[in-house]
Amino acid sequence: IKKKIFNENGVRGTETLIEGNTTNLREWNRIKYSWAKTFYRTMLNNFWIPEEISLNEDIKQFPLLTNGERNAFDKIISFLNFLDSIQSENLPNLSRYVTAPEISSLLNIQAFQEEIHAQSYSYILDTVTNPVTRDKIYDEWREDKQLLERNRYIANIYQEFNENPTTDNFIRTVTANYILEGIYFYSGFSFFYTLARQGKMTATSTIFKYINRDEITHLVLFQNIIKELRNEKPEIFTQAVLMQIREMMRTGVEHEIRWGQYVTNNEILGINDTLIEKYIKYLGNQRLKAIGLEELYPEITENPMAWIEGFSSLNQTKTDFFEAKVTNYTKAAAYDFDDLE
Amino acid sequence: IKKKIFNENGVRGTETLIEGNTTNLREWNRIKYSWAKTFYRTMLNNFWIPEEISLNEDIKQFPLLTNGERNAFDKIISFLNFLDSIQSENLPNLSRYVTAPEISSLLNIQAFQEEIHAQSYSYILDTVTNPVTRDKIYDEWREDKQLLERNRYIANIYQEFNENPTTDNFIRTVTANYILEGIYFYSGFSFFYTLARQGKMTATSTIFKYINRDEITHLVLFQNIIKELRNEKPEIFTQAVLMQIREMMRTGVEHEIRWGQYVTNNEILGINDTLIEKYIKYLGNQRLKAIGLEELYPEITENPMAWIEGFSSLNQTKTDFFEAKVTNYTKAAAYDFDDLE
Ligand SMILES: [Ca+2]
Ligand SMILES: [Ca+2]
Repeated sequence: IKKKIFNENGVRGTETLIEGNTTNLREWNRIKYSWAKTFYRTMLNNFWIPEEISLNEDIKQFPLLTNGERNAFDKIISFLNFLDSIQSENLPNLSRYVTAPEISSLLNIQAFQEEIHAQSYSYILDTVTNPVTRDKIYDEWREDKQLLERNRYIANIYQEFNENPTTDNFIRTVTANYILEGIYFYSGFSFFYTLARQGKMTATSTIFKYINRDEITHLVLFQNIIKELRNEKPEIFTQAVLMQIREMMRTGVEHEIRWGQYVTNNEILGINDTLIEKYIKYLGNQRLKAIGLEELYPEITENPMAWIEGFSSLNQTKTDFFEAKVTNYTKAAAYDFDDLE
Repeated sequence: IKKKIFNENGVRGTETLIEGNTTNLREWNRIKYSWAKTFYRTMLNNFWIPEEISLNEDIKQFPLLTNGERNAFDKIISFLNFLDSIQSENLPNLSRYVTAPEISSLLNIQAFQEEIHAQSYSYILDTVTNPVTRDKIYDEWREDKQLLERNRYIANIYQEFNENPTTDNFIRTVTANYILEGIYFYSGFSFFYTLARQGKMTATSTIFKYINRDEITHLVLFQNIIKELRNEKPEIFTQAVLMQIREMMRTGVEHEIRWGQYVTNNEILGINDTLIEKYIKYLGNQRLKAIGLEELYPEITENPMAWIEGFSSLNQTKTDFFEAKVTNYTKAAAYDFDDLE
């Protein structure tokens, strides 16, 4: 049920994630989900401005990338720009059915961060490439059938909810969000971290660390949304629905493996088809366990690219003016983000 | 027409504010409205965190406010919290019909800022009052018929578009947004600046200066949206529609005058019924002229509270860690925000 912009008949204490009878007014001092405050604080403290990261070194390195690296670079940026763009479009839509004002707030903050991410790709493209290359990268999905298929798959799930906002479609959209935040970004991230580990495009990689830091809050936010929903409305999480979530995750993992292998094409030093497969399956297991579901690939028990966990952390890169505060805050936070990549 | 989350048949060069055939992907390097880039930059540079402003002094002063000041304080905060809350709910809805990705981005950033504003009221209430007073203030609209009537008037315009998204309702919602940003905040602001000018609640007033700085970008954003719409679709801006916009402004001005007089009740030193009336009418004239319409109150030719223009500027208060950058940026910006309050 779509909520009202302002529901003057809202009653305190009726707050639930969906179908609550709430006013929709922001009242941060009397919220239902106390973890939302930690998210709010963390997401605000994570604020960053792409242009603060100078890309001067990367300008020089970009022409020296191998053909394989360039191919991966182009397709990954095109895909990530698509992902952040549709998040910016979908989150506001999702929010209209959320009857917990503090969660609607977080979705607005997330949408804001997706905007920053998308703009950061523009910044990278405008700085390290020329207008012709840039346009080619933006339009990559118009030419590349594999990329278009991926984009369509996700967009269709979101679009379905947009047109037919049933509870079942709500769960599907939330799950798709979770998979997008928790799986779809990761072969892209791992490619950039692999480059940076060899001293290539390190500033671009720093931008990805900032994006990655934001994505972790988005991931855990959707984890919490799923958990709270299941808590509040166990009746809608039938065996069939739980199975569907698991199968969606399987599809997501398979798409991401195929995509990661397609874009890197076994031509990138430090990354190969086997590594990608194991890494993404490992992530799939983690994501399912985090929402209380059984893992899909019990044979994968550890992260084959464990070095990323340390490498992607911003604390090991140059600290910027927000950094000290962020680190301090995260340490003090009740919520543990550390068990996630 | 509600846009698709992702429109794979989108064509470059078809971008318009509404009813364009755009992909909805973010591509900041090839946008139609070049002024959007300045807004993006300014809005990002304006980022602030309420808790950075210490309210210690205000804690001591709050109990010393006169009854008249307390009455105004309570009702104004309650109203402003309502305004920022419904903005957070309405902007995402509006955005779904906007087929200019850069404008959708700005609306998401605006929604983010409204969230900060709403949370800043929570911060003020939690810091300077106790939980009982705080709840009473949050719930003021449930008791105060005048306040509820105001809230209803605005919410109904937004709700109508929410349920029946015709082009006419789109224009009405955009106009309501413009009036809200350009008129409804201002008797509240002027009250807090009047207090601060006498050395009362100066930290709270600094928070309002930050909010005010954001609101100016929102105001000019909607100004530009109206101007571009009128440019692109002159046929929908018939004489009747233009008259309607002007009449909505008149209603907005009258509501705000009545409200300002009601909450201050001629009991606040430095502010009175006549000043409020002239000030709000002056603002009404300015807002209409800015979108190319004839002023409503030609007899009001100057700002009777002109001191606010200097006083509300953050450059005259203590600079925080964003300040230097912001000031520099604003100076460099091509867009002139200075002719606005
Ligand atoms: Ca995200
Ligand atoms: Ca605003």
